Amino acid sequence: MTTASVDVDSARRAYAALVDRGLSLDITRGKPAPRQLDLSAELLSLPRGEYRAEDGSDTRNYGGLKGLPELRRIFADALQVPVEQLLAAGNSSLELMHDAVAQAMLSTLPGGQRRWADEPRVAMLCPVPGYDRHFNLAARFGIELIPVAITETGPDLAEVERLAAADAGIKGIWCVPKYSNPTGVTFSGETVRRLAAMPTAAPDFRIFWDNAYAVHHLTEAEPELADLLALCAEAGNPDRAFVFGSTSKITLAGAGVGFFGSSEANIAWWLGLIGKRTIGPDKVNHLRHALFLSDTEGLRAHMRKHAEILAPKFAAVDRILTEELGGSGLASWTKPAGGYFVSLTAPEGTAKEIVRLAKAAGVALTPAGATHPHGDDPADSTIRIAPSFPEPAEVEEAVRALAVCLRLAVAERG
Amino acid sequence: MTTASVDVDSARRAYAALVDRGLSLDITRGKPAPRQLDLSAELLSLPRGEYRAEDGSDTRNYGGLKGLPELRRIFADALQVPVEQLLAAGNSSLELMHDAVAQAMLSTLPGGQRRWADEPRVAMLCPVPGYDRHFNLAARFGIELIPVAITETGPDLAEVERLAAADAGIKGIWCVPKYSNPTGVTFSGETVRRLAAMPTAAPDFRIFWDNAYAVHHLTEAEPELADLLALCAEAGNPDRAFVFGSTSKITLAGAGVGFFGSSEANIAWWLGLIGKRTIGPDKVNHLRHALFLSDTEGLRAHMRKHAEILAPKFAAVDRILTEELGGSGLASWTKPAGGYFVSLTAPEGTAKEIVRLAKAAGVALTPAGATHPHGDDPADSTIRIAPSFPEPAEVEEAVRALAVCLRLAVAERG
Repeated sequence: MTTASVDVDSARRAYAALVDRGLSLDITRGKPAPRQLDLSAELLSLPRGEYRAEDGSDTRNYGGLKGLPELRRIFADALQVPVEQLLAAGNSSLELMHDAVAQAMLSTLPGGQRRWADEPRVAMLCPVPGYDRHFNLAARFGIELIPVAITETGPDLAEVERLAAADAGIKGIWCVPKYSNPTGVTFSGETVRRLAAMPTAAPDFRIFWDNAYAVHHLTEAEPELADLLALCAEAGNPDRAFVFGSTSKITLAGAGVGFFGSSEANIAWWLGLIGKRTIGPDKVNHLRHALFLSDTEGLRAHMRKHAEILAPKFAAVDRILTEELGGSGLASWTKPAGGYFVSLTAPEGTAKEIVRLAKAAGVALTPAGATHPHGDDPADSTIRIAPSFPEPAEVEEAVRALAVCLRLAVAERG
Repeated sequence: MTTASVDVDSARRAYAALVDRGLSLDITRGKPAPRQLDLSAELLSLPRGEYRAEDGSDTRNYGGLKGLPELRRIFADALQVPVEQLLAAGNSSLELMHDAVAQAMLSTLPGGQRRWADEPRVAMLCPVPGYDRHFNLAARFGIELIPVAITETGPDLAEVERLAAADAGIKGIWCVPKYSNPTGVTFSGETVRRLAAMPTAAPDFRIFWDNAYAVHHLTEAEPELADLLALCAEAGNPDRAFVFGSTSKITLAGAGVGFFGSSEANIAWWLGLIGKRTIGPDKVNHLRHALFLSDTEGLRAHMRKHAEILAPKFAAVDRILTEELGGSGLASWTKPAGGYFVSLTAPEGTAKEIVRLAKAAGVALTPAGATHPHGDDPADSTIRIAPSFPEPAEVEEAVRALAVCLRLAVAERG
């Protein structure tokens, strides 16, 4: 990308004017807006007098490790996991991912030779730009984080295959395969097939398939995602996939339901271990969700309402960036068809400064480097924009401010 | 206890008559009865239109690792933990206990020299009879379980002090300090003081203080429990206490709230670690509970309603056992002032047989040995009775059946 030159004086004046406006804006984290949470207002009164599950059991009492079947049925297609192998759990998919790593640390996985805690070294592949909470949770366990580039079709497969085949310490890869965070990429069929089939030096290699945005479309054009779990089985690697999902950005962000799906062997391994940890998840909340969403068509209709609120915010990001920076050669950015983020690529070496300038002007941007392991973006160029939470007018102001800061950072870099 | 002789023929006839009745009864697990769950029916419609916390934040959205302060305030006195050091979490205290062990395995505790996973040996003291889920969760981590006798005032202190002072591998002790499961014992003030103050060879020794029955009184006479957390601080062992609590037997068994409280240093350690695991617990469920219970007086009033349902069942157990076995010298049993269990001591070597006979007659009793680590009661004499779930008439039948089986087991033992 050719970087046009920017007039320093006009960039400084524009920045000073920005600071003078005394803004207080935040486009850092992918939180649903209050209006989106309002779409699920009925949940706050459910299940009312109901407490019996479909099978007649009392959801209020103890029991049932796998979670409510009627809720699991609603998400089985979206997450591409057979109902019997799909578990509904607590309020977070992040905790399921964390616990999957913790359990693998402390108990040998199906196919493994030893607990990860007894391996001399454990590493995971981290497509970048990616999701900071994945990287931070892995780092908590002392896992080495190996960045690999993400392309328009998914992670750089040649690199992933090369590394995974050669290094037995590489035990996993983090994936957000649909509307990836933050690049908006949906993995191609070839990507999914090759991930499912590639040889790995580690016999207990796991794909952490965080399908957080499985139904989070912004447009009518819903990209297909190949069925990883099925492809792994076909390729003779049936236990390779750990599939995760969540209703956090469907119903209530802190009060939804997380899902974990995998092969029969992995599910048996998991249930045997979590049976020592819990008598079972909150089935009343599962029932609340099943009553509210009804079925897969109810889920789709509900997500269209989310799109009605979100799509204009994403359109505003693109419109303002185009107005401010279009054709300047100073930045490129994604135009995602779903998910929660726009990823902007600024000139190399400017992202940290842009974020600093914005903060000083009262506009919070995701810290530069958050999209990379250990907060280190070697190119210092990725900025993640999260337009979901603020009002549309605030989104526009924040993005316009970002452009002002970008131009100043470029100008002063000389 | 002198064992009277039992006439074999009459014992066999009584047992045959029992079998003929074709009963199907279960007094195995401490589950609240449906009528008890009905006491919290309003929860199923809460929080209705409310979603703002006291501090104005939106409980529906992400954020807040410690849980809702207004709910923590309601339980601070009952659990004897300052609000700022008391965390409200997911639907289970068992998972908090499990995760405390898991985190100690993977990250050095305050005061510790290394992670438990890097210790040559980790053991825990297990007052017996005790709670199988404690023992099973510790065993999952390969922790050695060392039984110690429980007396009328708590664990055998001389034994606990001797073992803990001499053995650096002993990292903890499991305690249900009020209305203990299953003996109904409430630890005396001296017990709590000595546990707080005793020298331990392990610098990171932890008391797992599972105060599961903190407010679960069956009578008006509520025994005092000394404040362990405060006593530990006074004794110069401020980080020794891990306090746990739960609303499972207060509101809805599978859909309540678990609590974890400890010293400031332990809480900081915990929050630093779980911040990698979750963005926060289900605050809507916390709000639901805070609105329903209102305050500590509301909690007390609610628990009196539970007692109205439970006390007659416990009275029935005592009445039937007295009718059937009183003065026979064949058994002794507890008369708890709270909690969920009666512990019956049968003649040595008969408990397994009694449970087997009962099962064959359609009456499920807690497996003999469940109250001991690895399911091994060396005296084979403890039987745990859980009268909460069935209707009173069924409780009576089941206990009468137990007496029939006990007499047969004794008679046939010769």
